[in-house]
Amino acid sequence: MSLSTIAFDADDTLWSNEHIFHLTEERFRGLLSSHTDISTLSNSLLETERRNLGYYGYGIKGFTLSMIETAIEVTGGQIPASDIQEIIHAGREMQDHPTAPFPHVEEVLKSLKGKYRLLVITKGDLFDQERKIAQSGLGDYFDGVEIVSEKTADTYKTIFQSYGDGPERSMMIGNSLKSDIHPALDAGAYGVHIPHDLTWAMEHAEKPENTDRFYQLKSINELSGLLDILD
Amino acid sequence: MSLSTIAFDADDTLWSNEHIFHLTEERFRGLLSSHTDISTLSNSLLETERRNLGYYGYGIKGFTLSMIETAIEVTGGQIPASDIQEIIHAGREMQDHPTAPFPHVEEVLKSLKGKYRLLVITKGDLFDQERKIAQSGLGDYFDGVEIVSEKTADTYKTIFQSYGDGPERSMMIGNSLKSDIHPALDAGAYGVHIPHDLTWAMEHAEKPENTDRFYQLKSINELSGLLDILD
Repeated sequence: MSLSTIAFDADDTLWSNEHIFHLTEERFRGLLSSHTDISTLSNSLLETERRNLGYYGYGIKGFTLSMIETAIEVTGGQIPASDIQEIIHAGREMQDHPTAPFPHVEEVLKSLKGKYRLLVITKGDLFDQERKIAQSGLGDYFDGVEIVSEKTADTYKTIFQSYGDGPERSMMIGNSLKSDIHPALDAGAYGVHIPHDLTWAMEHAEKPENTDRFYQLKSINELSGLLDILD
Repeated sequence: MSLSTIAFDADDTLWSNEHIFHLTEERFRGLLSSHTDISTLSNSLLETERRNLGYYGYGIKGFTLSMIETAIEVTGGQIPASDIQEIIHAGREMQDHPTAPFPHVEEVLKSLKGKYRLLVITKGDLFDQERKIAQSGLGDYFDGVEIVSEKTADTYKTIFQSYGDGPERSMMIGNSLKSDIHPALDAGAYGVHIPHDLTWAMEHAEKPENTDRFYQLKSINELSGLLDILD
């Protein structure tokens, strides 16, 4: 059965995203540098994010709230309100960053359009993700855009069944082994990992083993070569 | 052409939601009562929410961030960090409220199941809305759940085309004239308004005129009577 459906993760697969979180975290560290050292602060923030994940899910608003909470904690409640306002501003400015596709992304999508059903499957805040897809200018290449709260094997099964011809004839491409590759492989799809130099600590996972449906590419422009081999 | 698809708004149509925002706002006002009077505070909060809508969309996280910002503003930056932590807690506690369906909702859904395609079309935060649908125990009655960032005529057209047989054979039921009724009528669907005693200031709108596709019910248990008439 030949491949009919190709799905792409969005953040750090089609465009850069994690770097905006890193830049904002730098700004956050600058604001609190007199209160605590850098590594304590980063650990506290990650710990707060992890604790809040069940309340906030993924995205900029939850990140902003976790920064505020961490700031209150590490300063023992001594942070002035003006600094909290500064954190709120920093959070809003994250949304003003332009969403520019990575090199080769648009030409690859153009070459695939019409030959395969093309999807975006992205996890995160509905509002954030819609804005980025609109800003990227890539929306029209896709036959479907699915914004989900978590990426599990079931998520992929459901989407590949409703948009495509089931997981067996589908491929998921992304930068996160944990969210894009493992659950897609578990669903029975192909999993194509394109590593990105920045990956969130919560997205780390081991490479899958014992599967002939896993591939790793250096860049999205190697995709057509892979598709030729699979065809 | 007979009706084939019935879609329900979620918050304050299937279950109570706005009252949780009201309760939290009361708590917020209590926290700041020494700084400003009630009506100034409510107006400031609504103004902040309106200004932030393009950044945060709808939902609890955006509401929490707007409360924090308003608190900093109305206290001239004098609010202590411990009170901001209190606001963050209040925001998180909103999510701990159980989502219990209104009376008659489940029996009505049961009676419609199998006779019509049943959908939920709700606007808001993906994470909040998924949690409420899961908590409500109603998920299995629906053939589709669509969580959208805004409800426009296009939103309804797209959904009624992809899940149903187009807007002409579809009905939207909800408590907001602005989000549930006007755009659904504009799309060509039936619009059935079930008012709720609490409606957010930003959702107010006039009743539609010059249409024979608009109905108003006092309660969801009047729905089967309406469907008999339309059939």
